Amino acid sequence: MQINDPATLAELTQAFAEYEQALVTNDIATLDRLFWNSPHTLRYGVGENLYGFEAIQEFRNGRPSQGLARTVTRTALTTFGSDHGVANIEFVRAGSERIGRQSQTWVRFDEGWRVVAAHVSLMAG
Amino acid sequence: MQINDPATLAELTQAFAEYEQALVTNDIATLDRLFWNSPHTLRYGVGENLYGFEAIQEFRNGRPSQGLARTVTRTALTTFGSDHGVANIEFVRAGSERIGRQSQTWVRFDEGWRVVAAHVSLMAG
Repeated sequence: MQINDPATLAELTQAFAEYEQALVTNDIATLDRLFWNSPHTLRYGVGENLYGFEAIQEFRNGRPSQGLARTVTRTALTTFGSDHGVANIEFVRAGSERIGRQSQTWVRFDEGWRVVAAHVSLMAG
Repeated sequence: MQINDPATLAELTQAFAEYEQALVTNDIATLDRLFWNSPHTLRYGVGENLYGFEAIQEFRNGRPSQGLARTVTRTALTTFGSDHGVANIEFVRAGSERIGRQSQTWVRFDEGWRVVAAHVSLMAG
């Protein structure tokens, strides 16, 4: 299994960047598109545990669009073969000293790269 | 790509159970064996961000072996094809009301199933 095949890593990097841009602009349609539309998809957020695409979509629709901006301070992307990868970042938000962490597992389906599991948290100080 | 192929899911379930048992008994040799031995491996813990197998190993060796017991309250495992999967759980520790979450991305290498990325956190109350 090839680790970090350059073409695959470039694809994942692009998908990850598209997600990050959609997040900070609260582009919900793009965020929804980039998550796997499945009851198996899950997202652990800072303050919620969401199981299934519909629960994640509902959460996004109900979330205030302010305060989503953030600065990514460290990025680590790794791909496994041609269809699988992980994207992990550390981030900080304006006005907070807490270190945020976001982990995503990505899989390439026929329709493109999709997040199949995500976990966002603030590191205990 | 087959989702949750029964044989693959059974394998991941077994690997995940082996990890959980090793964690609560602080069986460091098994924990080390089940993490991918690579500088790309990472683990975001409740209070630390660890990059690379060696940093994870060093953290485990320096951690007190008490207080690792926990009760898993929800488990969600999903496999993608024959060599990839995610394992997500919620857990609580005795004496704490905080909800813990653990996310692992697993890949099957020639040497067996290994965790390539992990994220553990306590949900904000």
